[in-house]
Amino acid sequence: MIGHVVNRPEDVVREALEGLQILHPEMLSYHRDPLFVTRTVVARDKVVLVSGGGAGHEPLHAEFVGSGMLDAAVPGSVFASPTAFQIRAAVNAVETGRGALLIVKNYTGDKLNFSIAAELLGTERQVEIVMVDDDLATTTADEGGPGRRGTAAVIAVEKICGAAAERHWALSEIADLGRRVVAASATLGAAFRSCTAPGQDRPSFELAPGEMEFGIGIHGERGRETRPTVPAAELVAQLSEPILDAVGVERGDGVIAIVNGLGATHGLELSIATAELKSFLGDAGIGLDRVIAGSFVTALDMHGLSITLLRSTEEFLDLWDATVRTPALAW
Amino acid sequence: MIGHVVNRPEDVVREALEGLQILHPEMLSYHRDPLFVTRTVVARDKVVLVSGGGAGHEPLHAEFVGSGMLDAAVPGSVFASPTAFQIRAAVNAVETGRGALLIVKNYTGDKLNFSIAAELLGTERQVEIVMVDDDLATTTADEGGPGRRGTAAVIAVEKICGAAAERHWALSEIADLGRRVVAASATLGAAFRSCTAPGQDRPSFELAPGEMEFGIGIHGERGRETRPTVPAAELVAQLSEPILDAVGVERGDGVIAIVNGLGATHGLELSIATAELKSFLGDAGIGLDRVIAGSFVTALDMHGLSITLLRSTEEFLDLWDATVRTPALAW
Repeated sequence: MIGHVVNRPEDVVREALEGLQILHPEMLSYHRDPLFVTRTVVARDKVVLVSGGGAGHEPLHAEFVGSGMLDAAVPGSVFASPTAFQIRAAVNAVETGRGALLIVKNYTGDKLNFSIAAELLGTERQVEIVMVDDDLATTTADEGGPGRRGTAAVIAVEKICGAAAERHWALSEIADLGRRVVAASATLGAAFRSCTAPGQDRPSFELAPGEMEFGIGIHGERGRETRPTVPAAELVAQLSEPILDAVGVERGDGVIAIVNGLGATHGLELSIATAELKSFLGDAGIGLDRVIAGSFVTALDMHGLSITLLRSTEEFLDLWDATVRTPALAW
Repeated sequence: MIGHVVNRPEDVVREALEGLQILHPEMLSYHRDPLFVTRTVVARDKVVLVSGGGAGHEPLHAEFVGSGMLDAAVPGSVFASPTAFQIRAAVNAVETGRGALLIVKNYTGDKLNFSIAAELLGTERQVEIVMVDDDLATTTADEGGPGRRGTAAVIAVEKICGAAAERHWALSEIADLGRRVVAASATLGAAFRSCTAPGQDRPSFELAPGEMEFGIGIHGERGRETRPTVPAAELVAQLSEPILDAVGVERGDGVIAIVNGLGATHGLELSIATAELKSFLGDAGIGLDRVIAGSFVTALDMHGLSITLLRSTEEFLDLWDATVRTPALAW
């Protein structure tokens, strides 16, 4: 057998959900067929938030199910979209008559399956989709191309829209809010070692000592370019500068930041990146209004990090600060 | 530069503490010279708990500082003990007149430095030491040897004694409680890939695909033996069986379990291990009374896991369940 704590690769997702339910019985309930996760105590009389996508990005999305964030999460296999049938079943399990917001990371399979699910649900339920496409390493420029990938900004969308839903905002208002979060945020990542899928014994690509892959995604694909490794201070600058440009953050503004480990990144490294981010932003006259660091949106055991910056507004900060109780995020 | 998010290796610990304080200003305050971390709002009129040891094991110990757990943590350099001077300063910064419990993992350097600190403090403060030596891969049998290593059972000691301290137990009672937790718990770990220290570009030892190191410690040293990798179910059995024997857990008993990632272990893997542990214990007629899973006591970016089992008592369960609010553990 292979070098991971797994049994058969094809059982990874189901067994992990069994484990999660053992770990958090008061928060998460796991539905076997079709596969999805809901809050143990389902919410009433609010818009419900449902997200999902391929597995391998844990704690995303199942561990963000809970009060103040998602109502349900729908996992596919590792790096593969869930089916429209799963998504529809999850929405039907939690929807309360106020409508459902589907939060989707922009990948061809997810977009297709969530759209079909929305269509299937359309006659029975009020549904809106917020498409998250924050990864600056990819481009929106190709006419007809897949567009930018969705990565860690999805956490900000889930948190902020989740808070609005608890405050009984209407579906159209929450969808509009989610689109404003997407428009005001961007992400860029880099990695020192790619990920090894369960059942494999080699990373998805090789990097030599002294090399890092810049503009990395979360599926083990090559990034935008291979660069020489640099000290943390310089790495944080390389990642943050293009984001500030893209999002239009200027001197005097503030940001909400997500310092995200890609799977095998140590807490020491994420803490150091946080200190460097504060220092970098301070030098640019930009306030670090809020920051979280952790492995939130992973690419299996990839060793690297991404930085997501969301341009602060009073509304975003107020909703960000609202109470949240999920296995992976709580305050 | 090297393949980690670091600047100079010698600045890793200080910079990471700066980051932690940015992340958790309401919980953690970091003292620069000498280096230690305390609660931002220090407790009054209770026994204080102080732990520490080499860095590289994060979130241990700094992120277990907070209400219901530690009052202060004292980090050394990566895999090196803090000095007696640091430890004394940390105790003096938080001690309230009710005494201080020093929770020490059993390594030669830590034992020496905490003992010297206790001696230095002895005339000014009431001090007790609880020595944690839970790692079954090492032995207590060598007369005059260093004895068994301290690993993830330290989390149980800090949590349970922390709860007792909040309930205003006396120092001698809490020290006695801590020793009972140590006596009732044991740990065993295995790894698929060793750790790479900041500044290095190779793991501390090499394993071939299909090999795992069994009976691993948390400092990148070789384990007890190299074994073939096995499916998760078998791995959990290999780790758990010797623990049950050592701790004297029998059919009808229950345990508190810590499923611990050693640094680069994915959430999917820890969830699967949790599911397998419940199934393994169930087959043996043993209750999984409480379980947490996460990367709590790491060995830098080692890819592997340890399992810690503590034989449940009503007293342990009651204290385990008490409210805790730290960056790394909260309920």
